[in-house]
Amino acid sequence: MNKAIIAIDSFKGCLTSEEAGSAVMEGIKTIFPDCETLLFPIADGGEGMLDILTSATKGKYRTLPAHGPLMELVQGRYGISGDGQTALIEMAAVSGLPLVPEDKRNPMLTTTYGTGELILDALEQGCRHFIVGIGGSATNDAGLGMLQALGFRFLDKRGNLLGTGGRIMSQVASIDTSAVHPALKEARFTIACDVRNPFCGSDGAAYVFASQKGADTKMVKELDTGMQALSRVILSTTGKDISDIPGAGAAGGMGGGFLAFLNAELKPGIRLMLDVLDFGKRITGADLIFTGEGRADRQTVMGKVPSGILEEARKQNIPVIVLAGSIEDAAQMNRAGFQGIFSITPGPVTMEKAMEPEFARENIRRLVTQICSVIHPFATR
Amino acid sequence: MNKAIIAIDSFKGCLTSEEAGSAVMEGIKTIFPDCETLLFPIADGGEGMLDILTSATKGKYRTLPAHGPLMELVQGRYGISGDGQTALIEMAAVSGLPLVPEDKRNPMLTTTYGTGELILDALEQGCRHFIVGIGGSATNDAGLGMLQALGFRFLDKRGNLLGTGGRIMSQVASIDTSAVHPALKEARFTIACDVRNPFCGSDGAAYVFASQKGADTKMVKELDTGMQALSRVILSTTGKDISDIPGAGAAGGMGGGFLAFLNAELKPGIRLMLDVLDFGKRITGADLIFTGEGRADRQTVMGKVPSGILEEARKQNIPVIVLAGSIEDAAQMNRAGFQGIFSITPGPVTMEKAMEPEFARENIRRLVTQICSVIHPFATR
Repeated sequence: MNKAIIAIDSFKGCLTSEEAGSAVMEGIKTIFPDCETLLFPIADGGEGMLDILTSATKGKYRTLPAHGPLMELVQGRYGISGDGQTALIEMAAVSGLPLVPEDKRNPMLTTTYGTGELILDALEQGCRHFIVGIGGSATNDAGLGMLQALGFRFLDKRGNLLGTGGRIMSQVASIDTSAVHPALKEARFTIACDVRNPFCGSDGAAYVFASQKGADTKMVKELDTGMQALSRVILSTTGKDISDIPGAGAAGGMGGGFLAFLNAELKPGIRLMLDVLDFGKRITGADLIFTGEGRADRQTVMGKVPSGILEEARKQNIPVIVLAGSIEDAAQMNRAGFQGIFSITPGPVTMEKAMEPEFARENIRRLVTQICSVIHPFATR
Repeated sequence: MNKAIIAIDSFKGCLTSEEAGSAVMEGIKTIFPDCETLLFPIADGGEGMLDILTSATKGKYRTLPAHGPLMELVQGRYGISGDGQTALIEMAAVSGLPLVPEDKRNPMLTTTYGTGELILDALEQGCRHFIVGIGGSATNDAGLGMLQALGFRFLDKRGNLLGTGGRIMSQVASIDTSAVHPALKEARFTIACDVRNPFCGSDGAAYVFASQKGADTKMVKELDTGMQALSRVILSTTGKDISDIPGAGAAGGMGGGFLAFLNAELKPGIRLMLDVLDFGKRITGADLIFTGEGRADRQTVMGKVPSGILEEARKQNIPVIVLAGSIEDAAQMNRAGFQGIFSITPGPVTMEKAMEPEFARENIRRLVTQICSVIHPFATR
């Protein structure tokens, strides 16, 4: 074996992606000391992704004051890739649910304004490509707040400038783009989006997600009505019908806001991650890929990290091995294309024991050593 | 992969050797449907061995009345190989501890006479090779009872014929071989023996094993004194010093009795088993061997089934994979030469769940499928 790839999801509550990956690498090196091994730390959303991408692109962080979900000032933070071209933004950093005390959570009021401020800052810094993670938002404003920060002005039917929060969606009658930041025309946005909800309706942002953000039944209904109305205004203003686009309902309609007003593309987080990491190119010529996650079962097939890895690997006929704390439905996973599915568990143990980081690390090391050892006589014939 | 070998110990209390082996075979066939697979049922002692060897040699069983440990009549049973040459005898069948009620267990009295009767019958049937399993005996008579059944006469210093039981060992002054069955000269014995205890002394038969057979402290001492005396008589009579030979203390000195008076060789049970099965020859050209046992750890290295398999496999450079319910010390097992060590456990489970036969069978099937699947791209390059 000359080249092996490691791209393993974190074992949640137990090992980070990098820790799990290091254990895999040690196992490989035990048997194939001269094997080239590439370890890709993987995260398909949240802070983890921002950090991995910033690090992978040899980037740096910028911090700046920005407005939080309730327009309070917070410390904002995002990454800029080493070549200065790409901003790596996590919406949750300034517009995230944890920033709002539980008793103040109210998507009629919360805004994505701060996320727009981060984008604006990055535009000023010269970034023209934006990678934005939109998980964990406190908002349901269809991204209007973000757009306001970028210079969009939303007016009611009397021509009055609207404020912030999800409540304005139902009042938008016209959109004034005359003050929009001029560099925005040259910018493109890649949005990490793992949900496929439409903008509005019973599967839309308000009905599916707003209650988690503090909306009561009445608010949910009002928010959805607002989104229905907004989507009509968007259609008449921009010619784009976002109401049924899968993912437009992500992050309280943020997906739709991006699609309607910015040069944006929605991508599954792992897909985006692998693109930025140049995964497809870097795995060329590999003999084997190790991926994994805490629990592997039939959902893994339709899931995130391992199935994203598999998709890339299959294009180049590279076998993929899944390592997991516990496994089920292995035959189904084989049919989906995974070459091998292994549990790291060395025998009957409790869940508590299985989750001990040092135990799990050692189990991964051991299992990978055994797998490589068994391959060895065949790989060196 | 063109040829795979399966020789797996039983998972005690869960799956027989054959059940575990069948699950392995199904896993192999899932990935390599055209692979030649040889399944060797394996047992390194006890009734299992007798049955496997009788079946493997296409033999048949003989039953006959014989004397039990306390000279009561019992139904004896042994196998004769299909070619009529080899008797397959399990000492426990007529001289075993379970034949004696607990309150009657007394190695001063119990005798191996019945085992001799089985041998005698087989001699009459024309057998000249004897494979004898000596596990689970109720006796500590150094095989004198067995020898008596074959015509040996043990006399005390006054020339009186001695009776039976361990108590006679101290009284033997001379041995009359004039009435020994003449065919015995042409017979050779292969004894399955997995202990290395010497005939007598602190590590000898009496001190180590007699108390399990019902001896109290006084009897243990008397038995050992008897064996010391007997070994001196054997030395002066036959010229053979059996006192320190490893294994001579097996089965209450039965090992020593065989070595002193019969053309016998002691062999580890698995070794003997593999010889009879012609294992070394039949695995030639195999790509891989699957073995295993319920629990694999550092003791496996010095242990019975998997290490016996490994010994044969290494002569032909065939990699050996160990499957087990639980594993430990994998690195040590690798150093001993095992190519891969895998637990069949799919995740955190209780011991009780792990021991459910259908669960274990499915886990073996699944694991072997995954191992073969991972080998596949390398084996077919």
